[in-house]
Amino acid sequence: MTSASCPAYRELTARWSRMHRLGHLQAIASWDQAAMMPPKGNEARAEALAEIGNVLHATRTDAALVDLLAHADAEALDDVARANLVEMRRDWRASNALPAELVEAQSLAASRCEHAWRAQRPANDWAGFLENFGPVVRLSREQSLRLSDAKGLAPYDALMDEFEPGMTSAELDRVFGDLLQWLPDLVRRVRARQAGDRVVAPTGPYPIAAQRAISLGVMKLLGFDFEAGRLDESAHPFSGGVPEDVRLTTRYRDDDFEQSLMGTIHETGHARYEQNLPRELLGQPIARARSSGIHESQSLAFEMQLGRSAAFIGLLAPALVQQFGNQPAFEPANLQKMLTRVAPGLIRVEADEVTYPLHVILRYRIERALIEGSIEAEDIPALWDEAMTGLLGLDTRGNHRDGCLQDIHWSGGAFGYFPSYTLGAMYAAQWFAAIRRATPDLDARIARADLAPIWTWLREHVWLQGSRWNTAELVRRATGEALNPAHFRRHLESRYLAA
Amino acid sequence: MTSASCPAYRELTARWSRMHRLGHLQAIASWDQAAMMPPKGNEARAEALAEIGNVLHATRTDAALVDLLAHADAEALDDVARANLVEMRRDWRASNALPAELVEAQSLAASRCEHAWRAQRPANDWAGFLENFGPVVRLSREQSLRLSDAKGLAPYDALMDEFEPGMTSAELDRVFGDLLQWLPDLVRRVRARQAGDRVVAPTGPYPIAAQRAISLGVMKLLGFDFEAGRLDESAHPFSGGVPEDVRLTTRYRDDDFEQSLMGTIHETGHARYEQNLPRELLGQPIARARSSGIHESQSLAFEMQLGRSAAFIGLLAPALVQQFGNQPAFEPANLQKMLTRVAPGLIRVEADEVTYPLHVILRYRIERALIEGSIEAEDIPALWDEAMTGLLGLDTRGNHRDGCLQDIHWSGGAFGYFPSYTLGAMYAAQWFAAIRRATPDLDARIARADLAPIWTWLREHVWLQGSRWNTAELVRRATGEALNPAHFRRHLESRYLAA
Repeated sequence: MTSASCPAYRELTARWSRMHRLGHLQAIASWDQAAMMPPKGNEARAEALAEIGNVLHATRTDAALVDLLAHADAEALDDVARANLVEMRRDWRASNALPAELVEAQSLAASRCEHAWRAQRPANDWAGFLENFGPVVRLSREQSLRLSDAKGLAPYDALMDEFEPGMTSAELDRVFGDLLQWLPDLVRRVRARQAGDRVVAPTGPYPIAAQRAISLGVMKLLGFDFEAGRLDESAHPFSGGVPEDVRLTTRYRDDDFEQSLMGTIHETGHARYEQNLPRELLGQPIARARSSGIHESQSLAFEMQLGRSAAFIGLLAPALVQQFGNQPAFEPANLQKMLTRVAPGLIRVEADEVTYPLHVILRYRIERALIEGSIEAEDIPALWDEAMTGLLGLDTRGNHRDGCLQDIHWSGGAFGYFPSYTLGAMYAAQWFAAIRRATPDLDARIARADLAPIWTWLREHVWLQGSRWNTAELVRRATGEALNPAHFRRHLESRYLAA
Repeated sequence: MTSASCPAYRELTARWSRMHRLGHLQAIASWDQAAMMPPKGNEARAEALAEIGNVLHATRTDAALVDLLAHADAEALDDVARANLVEMRRDWRASNALPAELVEAQSLAASRCEHAWRAQRPANDWAGFLENFGPVVRLSREQSLRLSDAKGLAPYDALMDEFEPGMTSAELDRVFGDLLQWLPDLVRRVRARQAGDRVVAPTGPYPIAAQRAISLGVMKLLGFDFEAGRLDESAHPFSGGVPEDVRLTTRYRDDDFEQSLMGTIHETGHARYEQNLPRELLGQPIARARSSGIHESQSLAFEMQLGRSAAFIGLLAPALVQQFGNQPAFEPANLQKMLTRVAPGLIRVEADEVTYPLHVILRYRIERALIEGSIEAEDIPALWDEAMTGLLGLDTRGNHRDGCLQDIHWSGGAFGYFPSYTLGAMYAAQWFAAIRRATPDLDARIARADLAPIWTWLREHVWLQGSRWNTAELVRRATGEALNPAHFRRHLESRYLAA
């Protein structure tokens, strides 16, 4: 990938490797902060993370990079190096487009708003939230305008591009418009069909040691490499660490096993993507995961496409019986009904896969209008309620806690992330459609715990590709077509309405 | 401590605070490497630690420091700032004596050797170890020569000075020479005296969860702040982390509870020193622990002076009964015999306090000769066996696992550390002699779990002093005299030969 005749490019790869190594410490210290650190360590940890952040920022904004990037562009690079250079330039632009004062003001406004939000959400205090949220919105709008200038994208698209490179709101309007043509009716049909289902509820408590044993077992079944990662606990489950050492977390409640079980399956999808990124290129931006949406496509391929399939649920049932004892609820057919129950609800993170996109579309509409300036923060509750009524038939008036205050994203200024969840669900359906074409007896193989066809396909078409191609090209090379919501529709119809 | 009229000094404190913050990440990542990290994470971790080492080294060798240190020296500093400046200069000298390439090569060689050692020790694989150990020795010799030039000390002394500032091998030869005059005979007399003792052995197994509960309980009794630290497990127990968040480790075997119990007491001594360093100065070198020997004096004050005293053993007995059931072995008088049993053995970390100095003197002789170049790494097993035979009367031929492969120190390039253990034992005896003078009814207070007189004395005379004074001055201010091996001798005679 590098050669003696490309000195500028070689210097760039050395600098990015250096950032990768320092980022390793940042990642492990952040995991530790969430999973291990005692409370009095927090102040020193925050200072340490800010300090390494300064070191990394100084590296990314070093004035020498301007010439190095220009010179490398003129060097005789092969295709892989050329693609890596594109990603370096993305990194560079993101770090250099924003003045340090704006970054600092955003960081302060976000921590103030997010910190207060932790108390304001349970208190249903929208008016209080608004006071801190105003500056967050104002600064995010400024950020969007500056990124817009630097990238030549519309302001909201320029924010979304940080998470989902290449995705535009025009394209989102197309795919979300498609979803809206059939999804609300599909929700109604599934609800009517499930109305007569008799689902036996399991009986707890579910000892945490037993849940942990089930989580570890299912991770093993899903191919997680325990020599290159761990499972621990944290208040908010995540997949962190580094590709060489992935740190998953989950959380256990002794009155519910579904959350830790399905959460672990979800995070294992993120983890296997990281564990299988192209190893020989690690440290270079081309070896990173392609986008948030592609990352979510892995977790949702694991949790939704595979994890809630009848064949896979047949593999889960014996583990539940072994750990919690034999219960009628753990009959595979009943377990499947439990794990595919569809019910419109107020909370996004608790939503089933059928209604989930409606939560995302609602947020996408509001955050885009907010960034574009066609609405103000004050308008959000009314718009939220209107959309919840229209899309999910639920009344949220006055219930800000379970309405527009429920997510952490906006308080931290993370506008443009929500679409990735539903893009991920659609990509996941598209991957599985391709896997089923390649392996017509897939369900029979899953039923006998032979998951190799899935790993082989994902490894070749997604994991090992890293950021070699832009997302559209990755999808086209993997599946022979562009992002196509019809696969998601067919998946939902087949799982929830067939036979 | 800083003032507007001391701009150079102020700039120096800012730089040292920055290094403290980056060192925080180094400390947590190192703890994680030993206590949490899965094996495949090691290569990336080693690279990351080497990279942050580079950043720290660059900060410590910034050319601007030469003028800043000189200017600060001419500023109107108070005594505390002046002492801090002395420590800064020590740091500066140690770092500027070594080129960046050497520091990085040492870090990489040490990580590689130490990681392989974890498998090579149980496999008794001296030949395999030697392959990685060769580069470690070569680089350590280079380090010793460069430090020797910079400090005007002999090469081995220059290494030891990193751990034990102010200590020389001439002084060690004097103190160890003193020990060798009476200790071998004392070992023989104690052995003869204990030969007739009837000690009831306890019956295992000792469930690990029960051992963990005992460890946590004894740490609480010893004043460990669990909001500012954790207890975990690692192959080689240590006290790591940062003063704000101390990470202890221990190891459990289900056929032996003594190792984890006494090991935890030992590490808690290290931990309380760190947790009680002068908080308002944290980040500055004056707020660091004084030396490795003073650090060991805390762990040995906890484990040997306090932990194996009859009064404290009376506090341990009920916890053992509670966790393992009532056994004659747990009668306090019997337990005390168990915990003060003297028997020459192969393993340093399992040695009793009477024979322990002989293990240290053996290692001191070998590592000093190795650094001075009068022996090579290949010569170690034969020299080890010769010394074990001469000092402890034990044959270790072919048993590298329990011989020269038993310690982690050399694999990590930590030459010059071993003397600190025995210096620590002597300082600990000297502290307790002073505490007993201040609190004549100390044993009665310990027996009723009133440990406050110990904490008060150590906090005032050792912990809060940080690096305010050089070691000799610290000892003199605390006890009214210089390091005096007679206190250690009196302690051993009183515990093992009296009445």
